[in-house]
Amino acid sequence: MRQIIQNLEESKIREVANAGMGRADVLAFWFGESDEVTPEFIRQAAVDSIQRGETFYSHNLGLPELRVAISDYMGALHGPIAFERLAVTSGGVNALMIAMQALVDAGDEVVVVTPVWPNLTAQPVILGARLVCVPLQAQASGAWQLDMDALLARITANTKLLVLNAPNNPTGWTLSRAEQQTLLDHCRNTGTWILADEVYERLYYEPSSNGCAPSFLDIADADDRLVVVHSFSKSFLMTGWRLGWLVMPSSLTPHVGKLIEFNTSCVSVFTQRAGIVALQRTGEVTPQVVAHLKRCRDTLVPLLRALSGVQVAMPSGGMYAFFKLDGFDDSLDTAKRLVLEAGLGLAPGNAFASEAQGWLRWCFASHDPQRTALGVQRLQAWLGQR
Amino acid sequence: MRQIIQNLEESKIREVANAGMGRADVLAFWFGESDEVTPEFIRQAAVDSIQRGETFYSHNLGLPELRVAISDYMGALHGPIAFERLAVTSGGVNALMIAMQALVDAGDEVVVVTPVWPNLTAQPVILGARLVCVPLQAQASGAWQLDMDALLARITANTKLLVLNAPNNPTGWTLSRAEQQTLLDHCRNTGTWILADEVYERLYYEPSSNGCAPSFLDIADADDRLVVVHSFSKSFLMTGWRLGWLVMPSSLTPHVGKLIEFNTSCVSVFTQRAGIVALQRTGEVTPQVVAHLKRCRDTLVPLLRALSGVQVAMPSGGMYAFFKLDGFDDSLDTAKRLVLEAGLGLAPGNAFASEAQGWLRWCFASHDPQRTALGVQRLQAWLGQR
Repeated sequence: MRQIIQNLEESKIREVANAGMGRADVLAFWFGESDEVTPEFIRQAAVDSIQRGETFYSHNLGLPELRVAISDYMGALHGPIAFERLAVTSGGVNALMIAMQALVDAGDEVVVVTPVWPNLTAQPVILGARLVCVPLQAQASGAWQLDMDALLARITANTKLLVLNAPNNPTGWTLSRAEQQTLLDHCRNTGTWILADEVYERLYYEPSSNGCAPSFLDIADADDRLVVVHSFSKSFLMTGWRLGWLVMPSSLTPHVGKLIEFNTSCVSVFTQRAGIVALQRTGEVTPQVVAHLKRCRDTLVPLLRALSGVQVAMPSGGMYAFFKLDGFDDSLDTAKRLVLEAGLGLAPGNAFASEAQGWLRWCFASHDPQRTALGVQRLQAWLGQR
Repeated sequence: MRQIIQNLEESKIREVANAGMGRADVLAFWFGESDEVTPEFIRQAAVDSIQRGETFYSHNLGLPELRVAISDYMGALHGPIAFERLAVTSGGVNALMIAMQALVDAGDEVVVVTPVWPNLTAQPVILGARLVCVPLQAQASGAWQLDMDALLARITANTKLLVLNAPNNPTGWTLSRAEQQTLLDHCRNTGTWILADEVYERLYYEPSSNGCAPSFLDIADADDRLVVVHSFSKSFLMTGWRLGWLVMPSSLTPHVGKLIEFNTSCVSVFTQRAGIVALQRTGEVTPQVVAHLKRCRDTLVPLLRALSGVQVAMPSGGMYAFFKLDGFDDSLDTAKRLVLEAGLGLAPGNAFASEAQGWLRWCFASHDPQRTALGVQRLQAWLGQR
């Protein structure tokens, strides 16, 4: 088999989770997933479809009704997004893989801003691209910031693709509108495609006119070299459904349709029916999800800040608190010890980039803030014993 | 975007289907899909799972219960297949893509026996591999045969991967046990991986001890360089579910798990629950499906043979009649004319390889053999008018 695939790292998050296997008393905050079931009315749409017998292949690009629903939903947030710019994919991660297959030849240079969800750095490697990571800078406050000059210096005419995830998993860092404009202008000059993973756009806690983090879609032209990736997972509590979408220039769409055919062919119709209902009734789901996550964030971060030796910023977006623990320089080792010695499941920072060594990620998407508080007590007790 | 992706052919089958768009009276036999809904008890398993709230991420390699069910099912057909050799994927096509990502670097040589389902030749191209097609030989009888010497001559130590689909879509050609042994021996010598798309193994109409076409799994060792791809689509009437699996050496499995993470992460749990029930109760589905398809085949092929100028063999496997129509050398043009002038929807042979120019594929998977007979009447009338 390929050496490149053998060398791909297994998930360090899973390594920690495996260390806790068989321990029933672990409070797990390691995965990027809420513990709330998908709302009943969304599930019912899938049930109805299955019972109607919708068990056949569907269009590569997605059901027209779903693409219309996405167009309406995105249009309300970002202004008109034509139907022809949309494709339905088997999850956000699949949307990212399809986009990279469309854009990146083996040997091409791909710039990724890190720390980031490891799938975003693994995908270019799988395709044989040359990966260039540009790290955010950790501040004393615990916040991570973009060094724009350093990033612009790395994006040249040789850069085929710039990959950004903002609001960011794991740091909570969010691109400002001005930063997006600077990057868009620069990439127009260098001829670089931008792949923007904006799946956390609705999980945004700062004031905004549209209830969203700043999006490249707000400022780009329809034919800019821009692909934006979305998922139903976070804003609709639909992680396990594997449903996402791409926004792209319409000239790319037929080619993406071919790639979908050759990767997964289509998404099951009953899953798409659930997606249609989720988008049409987003007002019954997303605002509640976001308000609840904000309460979770506002519970967790002050508790963490009250601990000595913890550096943590209030994340402006996403569903993670990313914090540094003084005196614990090996995240993976620390996370494993926390599982075994404290019954607390966190993700190690070095799963997301080497510069996040010494950091830990806490997913605060939990139906019960008391669970979170109990987790902090466990961390505090463990720190007191060391 | 990548030139390679721009150059990828769109499906010629879809091009024909598009030509018939809006014509309600077309009898369509162009896609590789039965017109029967998934059996109710399989659908009910998914419904129950959704209603139980199984809407979360699951293991990259699939639910352990499903991998056990696959191991039991495959074991009954081919002798013991260890759980550790199995991975669940988002359809058979996704299994093929994952396998190719594991095995094929850009620039590697991949040999594919054609005519074949176009996805099998597109995937190596997407990954930047060098594609070498070795054509089957059409006989005067309408059957296609493998020129083993020609194939062996093309598989050298430089060949990274040999891709075979038998029983074959579109020709119905099936590898014999002796041919499989010859290929396995040769590829052991050259160090070449074999990727065997055996999704039609149950749709086999010759006498056999296990109700299956010959499989590489019957003769290979567990650690041979062999990956076998399967799907729930054909044997369980589950095309739209997007559920498949891989059998591979266990040393490959953890790496395939990483690739699944980076491509689709997992298959939805409720879809996997349907798969478990399908496998556990295969006796209530597959024998009936196969018996019915045999009746469909035995209805269609004699009717086609009765037409003058038609060369068609009785396919030993699969769900297609592949036939040559004398005097019609451009398959795509012929297929479009048949849609528009005769209301008959067939797939053009050159969708599957250039050497199948002049041929047409007829999918005989239809609940009603009368539909098939009516289709042949339309073909006959059209031929009479020309």
